[in-house]
Order: sequence, then C-alpha cells, then structure tokens
Amino acid sequence: MTLETISTGDEIIRGHSTDTNAPWLAARLGREGIFRRFHTLVGDDLDGLASAFRTAADRSDLVLVTGGLGPTEDDWTRRAAAKALGVGTVFRKDLWEALVLRFATLKREITESQKLQAYIPEGATVIPNRLGTAPGFSIELSGARLHFLSGVPREMEVMFTEHVLPEILAARPPSAADHRVIPTFGKAEAFVNDALGDVLLRTDASVGMTADYGTIRVTIQTVGEGSAERADGIEREVRLRLGGLVLEAESVEASVATLLSRRGLTLGVAESCTGGRIATQLTGVPGVSAVFLGGVVAYDNGVKERLLSVPRELLLEHGAVSAPVAVAMAEGARRVLGTDLAVATTGIAGPTGGTPEKPVGIVHLALATPGGTEHREVRLPGDREFVRRFSANIALNLVRRWLRKP
Amino acid sequence: MTLETISTGDEIIRGHSTDTNAPWLAARLGREGIFRRFHTLVGDDLDGLASAFRTAADRSDLVLVTGGLGPTEDDWTRRAAAKALGVGTVFRKDLWEALVLRFATLKREITESQKLQAYIPEGATVIPNRLGTAPGFSIELSGARLHFLSGVPREMEVMFTEHVLPEILAARPPSAADHRVIPTFGKAEAFVNDALGDVLLRTDASVGMTADYGTIRVTIQTVGEGSAERADGIEREVRLRLGGLVLEAESVEASVATLLSRRGLTLGVAESCTGGRIATQLTGVPGVSAVFLGGVVAYDNGVKERLLSVPRELLLEHGAVSAPVAVAMAEGARRVLGTDLAVATTGIAGPTGGTPEKPVGIVHLALATPGGTEHREVRLPGDREFVRRFSANIALNLVRRWLRKP
Repeated sequence: MTLETISTGDEIIRGHSTDTNAPWLAARLGREGIFRRFHTLVGDDLDGLASAFRTAADRSDLVLVTGGLGPTEDDWTRRAAAKALGVGTVFRKDLWEALVLRFATLKREITESQKLQAYIPEGATVIPNRLGTAPGFSIELSGARLHFLSGVPREMEVMFTEHVLPEILAARPPSAADHRVIPTFGKAEAFVNDALGDVLLRTDASVGMTADYGTIRVTIQTVGEGSAERADGIEREVRLRLGGLVLEAESVEASVATLLSRRGLTLGVAESCTGGRIATQLTGVPGVSAVFLGGVVAYDNGVKERLLSVPRELLLEHGAVSAPVAVAMAEGARRVLGTDLAVATTGIAGPTGGTPEKPVGIVHLALATPGGTEHREVRLPGDREFVRRFSANIALNLVRRWLRKP
Repeated sequence: MTLETISTGDEIIRGHSTDTNAPWLAARLGREGIFRRFHTLVGDDLDGLASAFRTAADRSDLVLVTGGLGPTEDDWTRRAAAKALGVGTVFRKDLWEALVLRFATLKREITESQKLQAYIPEGATVIPNRLGTAPGFSIELSGARLHFLSGVPREMEVMFTEHVLPEILAARPPSAADHRVIPTFGKAEAFVNDALGDVLLRTDASVGMTADYGTIRVTIQTVGEGSAERADGIEREVRLRLGGLVLEAESVEASVATLLSRRGLTLGVAESCTGGRIATQLTGVPGVSAVFLGGVVAYDNGVKERLLSVPRELLLEHGAVSAPVAVAMAEGARRVLGTDLAVATTGIAGPTGGTPEKPVGIVHLALATPGGTEHREVRLPGDREFVRRFSANIALNLVRRWLRKP
C-alpha cells in the first residue's frame, strides 16, 4: 500500500507557518508498516488542489489530505475534491443540524458562513469531527482512497485515529513492521553517530537520528518477516552502546518525572534565563503534580532576593549570571518550596546583554539536593530561543543524572 | 514567475524530522514578490525524485531542490537530476580538488566515498558551497530553471543567498509586492471571518486568516503595480472593522510587553494549570525584563499557601480550581512580587481530574490591579496542551485589555 499526503494553506505554502499534520500522519502510519512516498503542499488554490488530488490518486493507493475545510471562502478543499471527481458539492442537512446543535451547546451564535461546512462532494462519505466544526470526508478516485481531514492538528489526530485508521487497517492487514525510538540526552549528535557506527549502516533495517535541543533520538525501522525480532536486537545493541545516555521516558522532562516517582522525591525550580520553560515542560507531563510542586520565575533581581532569599551582596559582587547566584537560587527554591530537589538557571539568552567575560549563551545551572549543591556552567551557540530551550533541557538532565545515581 | 520547492530525505518523508529549508526559501522569495505554488517531498528514491523534478519543471518556472547531495549511496539527487535530463553524471576534477583541499585544511582524512560529491549531471553548472562539502548545481529542464542545494540549512541559506538569489533577481526584476500580517485576539475565527466579509473576497489581493490558540492572524498579500498602496488600504479597512481585537504587536505576549512599557507598569504571574507557560511566553519577548519581574508556578496547594499566601480555608472550602482561589493567587502574587499587576490561572487541563461540576477544560483567571481584582471563568475544549496554551493566551489578553483602558 503506497501512501501519499497533501497539505494545504496559504500560510504554509508561503513559509509563514509550519505544517505538523503530514509528518504526524507519516510517522503514525510508518509504525504500521505503511510508508509515505510523496508529500505535496498546495496553497489556497482551487485548480492547484484539484490537480494535486488527481496526481496523487494516479500514483498512490492511499492519500491523506489535511486543511482547507474551514468556514471561509478560501477553504477550497471541498470544491477542489468535487472538481477532481468531476461532480458538484451537496448540502447535507444532517451536517448542518449537527453544526447548529454544536453551536447551541457552546452557547455561540452560528453564522451564515458556517453553512459552507455542511457541503461535501457528491458521493463522499462523512468523517465526523467531534472536537471541531469542520467535518471531513472520504472519496474514491482513480482506484485510490482519499481521506480529507481538518487542518487543526488535534482535530485531525482524533478524526484519523477514530475513523480513518481503522478503515485502513481493516482494508489491509499490516505487513510485519516495527518502529522504535530511543531518546538520548547528554552528548552531541556526532558522538552518538560515532558510537553507533556500523549499526547506522545496517542493510536489514533503517537506523537514523534526529536532534532536538540536545535530545538525540535514534530511530529504528524494520519491515517484513521477523521485523520485531530484528528491531529487538538492534534496540538492545543501541542501548548497550549508549548506556546512561538513553532516557527513561520519551523526553528528558518525562524521564525526570518517572525517576522522581520511582524514588519518591519532589522537585522545584528557580528560573531566570529559562523564564518558566523548565516548569512548562515538566507540567506538560500528565500526572506530574505528585512530584513537581512548583517554582519561582525570578527574572528580576528583586524577585531573586525576595522570593529566593538570594543575598543582595552576591548579586552585587558576582552579578546575576554567576555560579554563586545560581547556587543561592537553587538552595533558596529548595527551602521555600519545601522540595527534596531544586534546580536553578541564570544566564544570558540574548540577543543583547552579553559582555566579553559573560557572552550571550553563557548559562549557570545549579542543583540543590539533601546532600549539597552541584553547579555547572555551559556556553551555548544559537539564538535566544535555542539558548532557552537547550539550557532548560540541560537543567532537567542535571536532575536526571542525580536521580540515576544509586 | 512561478516557484516550486522540492525536499528530499527518508527521515523527513517518514515524519521523523522536520524540513525547514523549503519554508525558508518560500518566505525569502515571497519577500521578493515571487510566490510558491507547490512543494513536494520525496524520500531517498531515484525514480520518485526524477519524476518529481519532471513534474515540477513542467508546471513551474523556478524549482528549488534541497537535500540528497551527501557522500552516501542513498543521496540520489545528482543521479535523479541526470535521469530527469536523460544524461549521465560527470566527474569534475575541479570539484574533487576543492574537496581534497577542504579536507586537508580541516585536517580530516578524505574517504573514497567522498568522490561521489565530485559528480554532477552533464551540462549542469556548479553552485559553490563554502560552508560544507556538498556542492550544488543548476540545470535547465522543460524551459524551467532548477537549482539543487545542500540539505544542511546554514549551507543552503548561504548557497542560495550568494549564488542563486542574484541570478533569480537578475533574470527578473522583482515585481512590487507587499505582505502584511494583522494579529488579533479575543474572538473566534468565524467572528473575524464575518466581520471581514467582502474583504476576504477581494480579487486585487489575497486576504486570509490563520488561527493559533486563540490568536487569529489576518494576512494580506498584494502583487504588482501599487501593491503597497493597496495593502495600506486593505490594512486600514481590516483595522477599522476589527477595532480593539487588533493586537499592538505580533503576539498577545508582545502586546502586553509593549503596553506595559508604554504605561510604565510592571507585571507578575501566578500559574497553576498553565504551569509556567505565561512566564515562558513573556520571557520569549526580548527586553521584557524591564516590565515583567517574574512569577510563581504554584502547582501544589502547599506552594499556593506558602508563596502566595492563599488561605488554606479557601482551598478547603472552594477547591484549588475556583474563583476565590484565582483571586487570592493574583493578589498574593502582586503583593509578594511587588508588581503593579499580577495575573493568575487555576484550572483542570486534563486528561484526568475533571468532575461534573468542574469538567476538564474549566479555567479560573484573575487579574489583580491597583484598583481591585477582576475574575473570569472559561471552559475550553481540547486536550491538555490546548487548554494550557489557550488559557495562557486568555490570561495575557486579560492583562492586555486592562492596559488598553484609558
């Protein structure tokens, strides 16, 4: 079964926003052993879309289209699908009634333009959208099956998982395939590359790497007979070679949450340059409230003094971006939050504020524990967002490494 | 001049890594009034690539291809371009000598496999790559001009800017073009759609909308003679119709920063369900430290009591997710942080923790000001991440609306 994806939207084709739907669909079906061969992106363009639908239907068995189902005139997908089929669109009273009901429940007034969302191409079947107002639909074209889904990621994911995926899997029992992701943190991509060496060159599996603010993920894809056993063997080898770099969960924050629960310990944070990002990442992990109690975003020096009891003399003598202040922040946070551990960051994320001794990218981190406080200094390349994200991950990994110790 | 981009790579087609090259090229050329109509993504696949090159050359004037120029056997771009042209590849001694010199300078041993990078399709012209080892090349096919660039973003950007862009601009003086983005917050997409009505249907400009956790951005694109004047006129009309929904800066957090600076006021936050996201968004704005002093992530009730002085009786009587607790959090944060304003959130982001009276998605917000405290309750649809992001934006907009009052 050959898979192809199509995304639409002027903002995406112009490079102003990023499409996450098509990559998500490709990754999800890859896990079932169904691989994408082409992806096409088209703007809000009736003829361009209709032609892309035809081209895809001619060369692939399964085509997944996202976007262009909104309630506005430039949401062309419905009309383009009808054009590719050579039919018209039809008003579906059942869809309209569902929309009216939905708006009533949300106590929102329904507008006339919303009626556009009650039209689908003649002969299409509806894909319900229980999280949003844009229903999707499925059609047959040139022997291919095309599914049209909302462009809103969470709506698309639910529509796909609940309605499209079961149809795909029922139509074709999945060929044996396996996919593993082994997340690591602590070393650069080139180090992981050299450590894996020949594993990356295996011909009986596809082994790759992706990097994301310091998290290096090793991916293993196998297909065909014995794919699970082969994936098992390669995963064992990768874990053996990378040892303690391999995370306990899918991200460094989820690993910290897992290790904290396992050891029955609690964590707090004191953030200056990361500005709340460590807390945001941790609180993105469902159920983390049992082990992560909270934190202080001490952006201003007055807040460092008042809430974390950082002595004013330290700030005056060493500056806010210094080892002694990082240590005092961590220890102050641990005390005031009443946690077992507390991690702190203070640094210069840029674009301005750097000096020759303290350039943009310098970050001091500290971890306060029942047995004392650790300090670490790093110098990171890249822009403000990169420095903030990378140093948040480094702070979390500092906690993780401490928790891994026996 | 019609533009099309093509990216290649197995990791991208499988959805394991994100292509940033094609969006960058589209945005860069959009600024010159050259707009992308299609984008295609193909895996490491000789026939798929050759066919994508032909399709693109048939329908577009300018085709920019990134990736697949590395030194390994599955870097198919060179051979696929030759195949599309119906020619062979040729070994270029000058390219090989440049590679040998480059490796000598870097004190790295050159391997035999590197020789692959000294081949280009017969008749192609070389695009130098001064940051990496993979040279690019340009060809003519079906009357279209195709440029092949490195898949490494910084190499691609330099190759494009120094060699390809000058050729494109010389071949065709840029037509006048203008692009505006008008960000709004406070009403749903359908409301903005109805308010704009006929403006969205103008034929002398392309006017669209994108939605991002409550931020609705109206985009205006004009091309050709008088495009700046036309964009001016449309922008005035959009601003007139949307009034106070139009943000003061590109995002709701940047608008809050702008308004705080303008009024000489400071802000603090107290976050429960948003878990640090409001602070993270605010500290993503460069220079915000003058007006945003910091905050407390009060995830645990003990932290709400200890750092924000929320009375235990309130927590026991009303529960942490309640109007009185939101109000006490905001007032406590304003007092302890010493700010003019403080905004607080407490809610149930899910997936668990909901009850019939307090379902997942309920969020209480409060804004403490010198003149008293405002409270607001919202019920948001969607998953944990959506509830967190949307409610962070609503909290920021609460601050923004207060700051807009005379």
